Amino acid sequence: MRFASLRDDTPDGRLLLVSRDLRQALDASEVAPNLLDALHRWEEVAPVLQRLYDALNEGGVAEAKPFDPTRCGAPLPRSPQWCDASAFLTHGRLMERAFGTPPIPHFDTVPVMYQGASDDFLGPNDDVPLPSEADGIDFEGEFGVVVAAVPMAATAAEALGSIRLVIQINDWSLRALGPHEMSTGFGFLQAKPSTSFAPVAVTPDELGDGWRDGRVQLRLNVALNGKRIGEPHAGEMNFDFGQLIAHAARTRRLSAGTIIGSGTVSNVARSAGSACLAERRVIEILDEGSPRTPFMKFGDRVHMQARFDDGSAGPFGVIDQQVVSIGR
Amino acid sequence: MRFASLRDDTPDGRLLLVSRDLRQALDASEVAPNLLDALHRWEEVAPVLQRLYDALNEGGVAEAKPFDPTRCGAPLPRSPQWCDASAFLTHGRLMERAFGTPPIPHFDTVPVMYQGASDDFLGPNDDVPLPSEADGIDFEGEFGVVVAAVPMAATAAEALGSIRLVIQINDWSLRALGPHEMSTGFGFLQAKPSTSFAPVAVTPDELGDGWRDGRVQLRLNVALNGKRIGEPHAGEMNFDFGQLIAHAARTRRLSAGTIIGSGTVSNVARSAGSACLAERRVIEILDEGSPRTPFMKFGDRVHMQARFDDGSAGPFGVIDQQVVSIGR
Repeated sequence: MRFASLRDDTPDGRLLLVSRDLRQALDASEVAPNLLDALHRWEEVAPVLQRLYDALNEGGVAEAKPFDPTRCGAPLPRSPQWCDASAFLTHGRLMERAFGTPPIPHFDTVPVMYQGASDDFLGPNDDVPLPSEADGIDFEGEFGVVVAAVPMAATAAEALGSIRLVIQINDWSLRALGPHEMSTGFGFLQAKPSTSFAPVAVTPDELGDGWRDGRVQLRLNVALNGKRIGEPHAGEMNFDFGQLIAHAARTRRLSAGTIIGSGTVSNVARSAGSACLAERRVIEILDEGSPRTPFMKFGDRVHMQARFDDGSAGPFGVIDQQVVSIGR
Repeated sequence: MRFASLRDDTPDGRLLLVSRDLRQALDASEVAPNLLDALHRWEEVAPVLQRLYDALNEGGVAEAKPFDPTRCGAPLPRSPQWCDASAFLTHGRLMERAFGTPPIPHFDTVPVMYQGASDDFLGPNDDVPLPSEADGIDFEGEFGVVVAAVPMAATAAEALGSIRLVIQINDWSLRALGPHEMSTGFGFLQAKPSTSFAPVAVTPDELGDGWRDGRVQLRLNVALNGKRIGEPHAGEMNFDFGQLIAHAARTRRLSAGTIIGSGTVSNVARSAGSACLAERRVIEILDEGSPRTPFMKFGDRVHMQARFDDGSAGPFGVIDQQVVSIGR
């Protein structure tokens, strides 16, 4: 199934089912008012939603309307928790060089993860208001999963079975603020403003061969102002999502609707390019002695779209956002 | 005004007004179903709640019932964000020695703050389920504030004006997990299980002289299994709450109901004792060469109660909790 959330006057939006070709949408709010509610009552509502989804794809639903992602917020406009890992080793190693921070201990065997704010997510086409270009405005293309309730100390296998939905994420980052926050040991706070999401959240079966080994087996095509930044492949994730969820649940319960992120998609092969500017800049420093690519300015746009290995478009829709000044 | 949240079958509980002597409670859910809703509609509902509160204190409300904090959850059983500072310099300096971590840069001039989970708070008398005594189970006695909506990049003065409520917090910490998480730079996640709260949240005017300079001017009396651990005074906070809120809002909006914590209350004067075990242990190491006080075992109880300078009880009620095994 594919879901989106139509903006309305509620904090959680209105549940839409989206057809497999992303052209039609059906208001499913009579089954569950919003996606978060559906996740809380999944066993009860999933069979009903599946029947509606099948009918939508067969073209047999008169109430279906054209799907307009510009009217959608994030699939979950807010969520109980948002925990973001850094599970691509290449990204982590490059960021250590970019930030001049010491190597993270046990980085290849123990997941690292920060807790992000989850009360104010941005939709796929929302402007991104930020206070200052001097903060080093950067995007981070990622994938993530949305889970059912997970008990404390769940195993990685149990955790893998808790995955309800797969999503595509832009984890906005302010690079001038990150190194200090890392040096305090307290982690990212100011360096991580509101996170953005592609419009469509999908059940893992929608990915077919694109979901294997607990990983998203798609590329993430990223462009800045229409120019290619990269298309790294997410299959290179060092941990599977079960391991990441279990890491988050080690000493706490996770409420249904919690989001676990992969961290910036990144590949050993430099030919794949990058899913963030900080990586590209450190590669420029390593190769050419200094960075050529600036961080983002107000008015710059980032475009992110997942693609299957055969080049066809992924199921999540597109993130296409402009950075703007808050004007304070 | 003084508020509590009666447990019911909703995630946010049911709004209670609590009398000044903490003996009577009045169901105020006809005005606002829960405290989070009241915070969202504060300008509209506060005058109505104030009239009910005044009548309750005058003994003129027939519907009032005895206040039973054991039936209450946290004042906000969940909140949009929970950002916890470390604003007592003595605590920070002692923890650097306890953890063997490097000094935090600019610790006395720039607040440090971590983002905690805010979807699953514990009430004042709830058992605290944890997976392992080997994790180094510890409490951290703190105060905090609950804010109105705060715009991105608010000044400290604006932020100070956004404070709606003052609360008392036990920020549970797992000391065996903290140093590694600090060393990753990503901050605390596993080291911070669900946070607990005293039952009563109060408007700042309820504190009288106990609210001055943007700080809570009360002691926090802490006991473990009936034995005194300390009663440090919160007036020694290095930043005021306006500065802490502004730090959190530097690159993000804060939704109404966001909680900002002070970090563990701690004093320069050793005679005040401590509000956590890790501090006491490092003092034992410094004074005697090794720690005498163990971390908590399953079955141990912590008791926390604020007190005004004249020795009278603070307005927040009591945290009295037992640590238990999740039994997995």
